[in-house]
Amino acid sequence: MIRAAIAGASGYSGAELVRWLSGHGQVELGALAAGRSAGQPVEAVFPHLAGVAEGNLAPTDWDLLGAEADVVFLALPHGEALAAAARLLDAGARVVDLGADFRLRDPAAYRQWYGGEHTATDLLAEAAYGLTEWHRDAVAGARLVANPGCYPTASSMALKPLLEQFGDRVTAAIVIDAKSGVSGAGRNPRDGYQYSELNENFKPYATGAHRHQPEIEQELAAGGGPEAQVFFSPHLAPMTRGILAACYVPMADAPSREELEAVFLHRYAGEPFVRVLTGSALPQTKATLGSNYCDIAVRVDRARGLAVTFSAIDNLVKGAAGQAVQNMNVMFGLDETTGLLAAPVFP
Amino acid sequence: MIRAAIAGASGYSGAELVRWLSGHGQVELGALAAGRSAGQPVEAVFPHLAGVAEGNLAPTDWDLLGAEADVVFLALPHGEALAAAARLLDAGARVVDLGADFRLRDPAAYRQWYGGEHTATDLLAEAAYGLTEWHRDAVAGARLVANPGCYPTASSMALKPLLEQFGDRVTAAIVIDAKSGVSGAGRNPRDGYQYSELNENFKPYATGAHRHQPEIEQELAAGGGPEAQVFFSPHLAPMTRGILAACYVPMADAPSREELEAVFLHRYAGEPFVRVLTGSALPQTKATLGSNYCDIAVRVDRARGLAVTFSAIDNLVKGAAGQAVQNMNVMFGLDETTGLLAAPVFP
Amino acid sequence: MIRAAIAGASGYSGAELVRWLSGHGQVELGALAAGRSAGQPVEAVFPHLAGVAEGNLAPTDWDLLGAEADVVFLALPHGEALAAAARLLDAGARVVDLGADFRLRDPAAYRQWYGGEHTATDLLAEAAYGLTEWHRDAVAGARLVANPGCYPTASSMALKPLLEQFGDRVTAAIVIDAKSGVSGAGRNPRDGYQYSELNENFKPYATGAHRHQPEIEQELAAGGGPEAQVFFSPHLAPMTRGILAACYVPMADAPSREELEAVFLHRYAGEPFVRVLTGSALPQTKATLGSNYCDIAVRVDRARGLAVTFSAIDNLVKGAAGQAVQNMNVMFGLDETTGLLAAPVFP
Amino acid sequence: MIRAAIAGASGYSGAELVRWLSGHGQVELGALAAGRSAGQPVEAVFPHLAGVAEGNLAPTDWDLLGAEADVVFLALPHGEALAAAARLLDAGARVVDLGADFRLRDPAAYRQWYGGEHTATDLLAEAAYGLTEWHRDAVAGARLVANPGCYPTASSMALKPLLEQFGDRVTAAIVIDAKSGVSGAGRNPRDGYQYSELNENFKPYATGAHRHQPEIEQELAAGGGPEAQVFFSPHLAPMTRGILAACYVPMADAPSREELEAVFLHRYAGEPFVRVLTGSALPQTKATLGSNYCDIAVRVDRARGLAVTFSAIDNLVKGAAGQAVQNMNVMFGLDETTGLLAAPVFP
Repeated sequence: MIRAAIAGASGYSGAELVRWLSGHGQVELGALAAGRSAGQPVEAVFPHLAGVAEGNLAPTDWDLLGAEADVVFLALPHGEALAAAARLLDAGARVVDLGADFRLRDPAAYRQWYGGEHTATDLLAEAAYGLTEWHRDAVAGARLVANPGCYPTASSMALKPLLEQFGDRVTAAIVIDAKSGVSGAGRNPRDGYQYSELNENFKPYATGAHRHQPEIEQELAAGGGPEAQVFFSPHLAPMTRGILAACYVPMADAPSREELEAVFLHRYAGEPFVRVLTGSALPQTKATLGSNYCDIAVRVDRARGLAVTFSAIDNLVKGAAGQAVQNMNVMFGLDETTGLLAAPVFP
Repeated sequence: MIRAAIAGASGYSGAELVRWLSGHGQVELGALAAGRSAGQPVEAVFPHLAGVAEGNLAPTDWDLLGAEADVVFLALPHGEALAAAARLLDAGARVVDLGADFRLRDPAAYRQWYGGEHTATDLLAEAAYGLTEWHRDAVAGARLVANPGCYPTASSMALKPLLEQFGDRVTAAIVIDAKSGVSGAGRNPRDGYQYSELNENFKPYATGAHRHQPEIEQELAAGGGPEAQVFFSPHLAPMTRGILAACYVPMADAPSREELEAVFLHRYAGEPFVRVLTGSALPQTKATLGSNYCDIAVRVDRARGLAVTFSAIDNLVKGAAGQAVQNMNVMFGLDETTGLLAAPVFP
Repeated sequence: MIRAAIAGASGYSGAELVRWLSGHGQVELGALAAGRSAGQPVEAVFPHLAGVAEGNLAPTDWDLLGAEADVVFLALPHGEALAAAARLLDAGARVVDLGADFRLRDPAAYRQWYGGEHTATDLLAEAAYGLTEWHRDAVAGARLVANPGCYPTASSMALKPLLEQFGDRVTAAIVIDAKSGVSGAGRNPRDGYQYSELNENFKPYATGAHRHQPEIEQELAAGGGPEAQVFFSPHLAPMTRGILAACYVPMADAPSREELEAVFLHRYAGEPFVRVLTGSALPQTKATLGSNYCDIAVRVDRARGLAVTFSAIDNLVKGAAGQAVQNMNVMFGLDETTGLLAAPVFP
Repeated sequence: MIRAAIAGASGYSGAELVRWLSGHGQVELGALAAGRSAGQPVEAVFPHLAGVAEGNLAPTDWDLLGAEADVVFLALPHGEALAAAARLLDAGARVVDLGADFRLRDPAAYRQWYGGEHTATDLLAEAAYGLTEWHRDAVAGARLVANPGCYPTASSMALKPLLEQFGDRVTAAIVIDAKSGVSGAGRNPRDGYQYSELNENFKPYATGAHRHQPEIEQELAAGGGPEAQVFFSPHLAPMTRGILAACYVPMADAPSREELEAVFLHRYAGEPFVRVLTGSALPQTKATLGSNYCDIAVRVDRARGLAVTFSAIDNLVKGAAGQAVQNMNVMFGLDETTGLLAAPVFP
């Protein structure tokens, strides 16, 4: 049994980790550590976990966590994992960081987008970027995995096969118009995010200025092909879970839809968590809700010089806790699907 | 492995059965039979099941189903199970009927509330009423289980311990004000149930005239105590899943809240799917979403001569497919929790 | 033109007052006063009001407000209107208080339920309770109107005709099971009210302990008949606006539905904002959304000794700002419907 | 008073027309004609209209409608207005068609996208395209106005000022990623549009193949500048009302944001229903809900060669009934804002 602990357990990603790890089968769930909620019974913070996770939220003692756990999942505000990761690794634990601290490889980019010095650049160099389907080998050997952001997961899954094959035909900036459920904004109550103001409302935010834009550009360039420029345009949809990304790729001599579809089908053949939809089907967030699936479809308008790829995920599963567990499975040599094969919750 | 089949697989209860049975561990999922959708690929009818359940929906051939399956789950419109059950039992399968055909013990009541003759009264006499926590022994020995309605499940779980202990103090009709998510109305599109008319809307329906009222009265009388009159008042809430039942019990010499709470804690001690909430906690549907839990809490106003019990369930799980699987586990001698211990999906 | 001002304009009731007053026709809308938002442009606080209400939110200067306005609407946390009302009246303005400070006639009850001394008991004695359809004459002559709470409005409208006629037949405590949209909880962000935790969730709260319970009991006794005991059981529904109240009245020798319906039809004949539904129709919140209507229907189960009355309102209109404007119309001798005859927004 | 009638009154656009016309002030609302609902009381079809619109839905008698009304609003399935318009005009009425029959100027395009012959090409030539802010003069003199589609309204309002000024700098196909509430799909219940399947779901549909794509391309070319290619990508959002359009325009030598903003501010200065948002504000559907406003904002990423314009409308108001009334006001020489100056409903 893998002994696992969670730091930042009082947020939504933390709760989702508990859901997956408590039913994993190969994991013994240890400390659920939190900040200001430490000491409270789990069910006071998460009523749905009564009977699932007993006891109290623990204080965040990095040395203790690192000593008692084989793997620690970090679900912390950015900046907080910089020092924590080192201490956990020193104490002998492996780390899956669901936050942003080890995603951008360039410390200067980190400073620019997150507003602070990166104080753990050695670990930054070591960290594997945990988009599992694309970096499985690196993850397998890693002590520290940077779990991708929710938007970058959806976007990269939908774009990398296209760019790998046809990257040289892209003629201009790729537009990613992404829509997320509200849980992606975290659990902290704040102005503008009241129920009554988000419900029955659809709105853009942080257009062209979201921290996930450089993460996506970095990952799209990771294949080694020509660099792709990305314009990232996120929106908030009146729902709790789910991301739908629409990726618009201006192309010269665009492939046919069949040709493009074949590339995706081939690339993701055998991937247990990727479903490439064909025919008239298009991804929809609800078809992935509660599951680790990433659904993808493509369309092409050759006359207008445009390929379009769609992807849908559950932002808290494939976009956070699910992929984190998927990475843990890889890190510990388990079958990658262990504990993750739940069907989506529908309707 | 138990070989299971589903008839009526193209509805919401059918899909939910697939979700639970496909991850059950002790079940081999066979035919998914449907009516007008027969012949279609599963994923055309339920996109979320791509990769979960392969193949096509089967036509409904009772003899074949009965021969090939150890247990057949029926998720059919009322009336359709009357003949089907007999044929399935004759063919050697056991049956869990999620519909209404074997719930009311009195054929006259069936005729009155469902508007047709009951043509399988011998099976009616034989059927066990599958409110598992209360009829475990009968279920264990049954060939045919009548899975309770969603509202009766929530209501009976919240009232039976009170009536068992204090039934003689009830002074007038019990009012059950219940609120359900829309999935309880089934998958058939119809006027008045359009998204735009239910969304941001809360409304009562079938007040005092719902078919679940006699089912609840029957089950509350099943304990052998004094008969309780029930006034059942259902409502539709703008959400997909969940039932919240508030049961108002007029009482002379009402027990204290502590006394009543102790009765519930005692009665449900050790029940893996019942959580009796204490302190300031109250049930909420979301804390049970996607799980087989039934959450219960009690309040008492002695000055006003009133006890109140609340329960929350997921109408498609404990109120339908989950309890059906729970009953199957009991029927086949498995641990009752097999395949059912998933944590709720939150948020 | 009536010069009107609003104190507490940055909350939801404040915004709703702006919506109605800006299109009223007989009102000149003056200062929109606020606390911590004072000095900000209206459209920074309420983007939807761009082009509707210009300028900045004003600081709350009671003397100035009282001097410049003919009527001041107070939409303040409880306690804050106690001193403000006196200063506004002294300065010559009339006051419609949408808060709770002048609703309970008994200062001891105020202390018990709101936790502070009532320091304006002379005004308390003077204030008219603004359930317009029932206290029109008092409102017409009042300098100070206590606008009823949202739940008490829905509940009293649904119960008073019954009690007026049949109050002596009530045999036990009346149960009011009420369901409200989230806007009733105000604009302040707080734990437990995050979008992701209320969405797709239905839950009770403050069962038997809500501050509106004594207000309802007081108003039901106002008719002079026998006192009615009320058990008030509020719930939160996953929607922004709307209240649906179900009132369960245990009765000996209950009238027939037709008889009871006739009482309601007679009592509310000619009332422009009350719609008594007959036949199979039942109130639903969406049919009142955005309007000042109160929809009512009745049902009777004589065998079970129970009458049931339902009412639906928009909590921010008939339950707050709309009724406040209705009261203003009465206070200033305008036609009561002036500026209020908007059709509901549907779907 | 203008005598107005509605054909197709039993749908959502019909109901919305009733809402606006019943409170218009200069309109006498006559027949509400319907198809299969004819003969039913208005409040049976639309409970929210009890007390607002009395009487029964009328049968659709074109000659009678044309004779008794000064203006007839058509809210019909496409194809049905082809013959109706002629008969109404012959009878002396003017016509505002909310359907698609007179939007595409080219009968061949009509055949291609709507699948039938256009049998009223003379009227097609005569019809004014009722995007009021852009074709005010044509509307003023028209007997027949083709009210724009909801998506084309949002899209054209957000793109025309840019193209007018900078059309020659556009380098590739414009991508319009639009998100609509469900009411845009009409009132007819159908598979895939059940509440439980759209709620908590976000999904694309008809990508690059929606009938509004040629309508948008036609209108963007109407300015006389270089033709713009449009790729139209609609999505369904889990809400009832609202459209948010994000328009991505690839540009060489893109103007600065300030420059582009100035163009929009100038073009829409004095327009009562257009709000150009500046600073950090972005359009959101809820800020327009229930109103005739169109909110617009722009962003520019010069490094990536991209201008982005956003617009938000209520699809049933500015996208349908509200703009139809706006056009009627213009046709009859009234102040364009008559009866339309309602503030949005928020929250």
